[in-house]
Amino acid sequence: MSNIESMDKLINSFTMLQGVGKKTAERYAYNVIDMTDEQVEFFAKSLQEAKANIHYCSVCGNFTEKDVCEVCSSRKSDTICVVKEPKDVIALEKVRKQNFVYHVLHGTISPLEGKGPDDIRIKELMARLNDGNFKEVILCTNPDVEGEVTANYIAKLIKPFGIKVTRLATGIQMGSDLQYADEVTLTKAIEDRKTI
Amino acid sequence: MSNIESMDKLINSFTMLQGVGKKTAERYAYNVIDMTDEQVEFFAKSLQEAKANIHYCSVCGNFTEKDVCEVCSSRKSDTICVVKEPKDVIALEKVRKQNFVYHVLHGTISPLEGKGPDDIRIKELMARLNDGNFKEVILCTNPDVEGEVTANYIAKLIKPFGIKVTRLATGIQMGSDLQYADEVTLTKAIEDRKTI
Repeated sequence: MSNIESMDKLINSFTMLQGVGKKTAERYAYNVIDMTDEQVEFFAKSLQEAKANIHYCSVCGNFTEKDVCEVCSSRKSDTICVVKEPKDVIALEKVRKQNFVYHVLHGTISPLEGKGPDDIRIKELMARLNDGNFKEVILCTNPDVEGEVTANYIAKLIKPFGIKVTRLATGIQMGSDLQYADEVTLTKAIEDRKTI
Repeated sequence: MSNIESMDKLINSFTMLQGVGKKTAERYAYNVIDMTDEQVEFFAKSLQEAKANIHYCSVCGNFTEKDVCEVCSSRKSDTICVVKEPKDVIALEKVRKQNFVYHVLHGTISPLEGKGPDDIRIKELMARLNDGNFKEVILCTNPDVEGEVTANYIAKLIKPFGIKVTRLATGIQMGSDLQYADEVTLTKAIEDRKTI
């Protein structure tokens, strides 16, 4: 710490960000002091504005400044991608020629964190499936323990609807090196091997 | 980017920080959305306050909220440490039983960046040496090209004052492994070897 009160306050602010420790926060704080007044004002304003303007889309739960987000208001689709976080939507939007809409759960089932099915937006998903004409649900939660549990739980709930339920393929990463792939991924990749 | 205007503005703000790229800025921006209103308000305020309150100490050039910084107003010393940046003061303050004051240059002589002796606070250093009763100047600029050039330049200027000029010792890092030391450091360490 710097022994300068407003400096320490700023350093503390930066440590609120995930993965930012004391050292990095100090560096950022010094960067701020070196910025122009206009830049700092822009920074402070953008924090306040983002917090004030951004909320959940009333349809899919993704972040938006409007009532209904860009994707939900402009895209018609019978396929729905279920994701854990808004960040995942950005990743999937990079896929070319995608034609699906999203449903953001804002979390996964995680007994360790005390999160049950009622703590994430599963109810809202069921309501959408009930109302809409969806033909397929792609469960895009992460391929980790919580993600798998959540996907399996939701898959069971959807069964009675007669809607096709799929999960993203797992396997060796494109462009990666076999020797660095972990055991679990390799085992799965061999199990799911494809005829060419 | 996210296609949400205030989100993109926030992401842009974070990329103003050194070493923060698009990916990291995105992560930070999402962190901000997850914060409480109070936390974001604290963050924004701390940015504005730090920028408004912090300026150079009129004596040593370190950052302070007052006219004269904590060190200069409380410590009497005949030894002055010349450093490149305010960050270096924090590092040196961690040394126990130090009894020196500082002079922050706010840069080094760097022809590549178009920075000459007049662009850093050398004049101010000379004025202090002229006025005060200093017995030793420790040149603590970094042991890189710019730091060495700056140290040599200042050393020559101080010579006529009859003040002792020293430079921090260079050598193998404490706690490090010989095999990872670079050639230049090793060469210097052998040259400067000490009788024990």
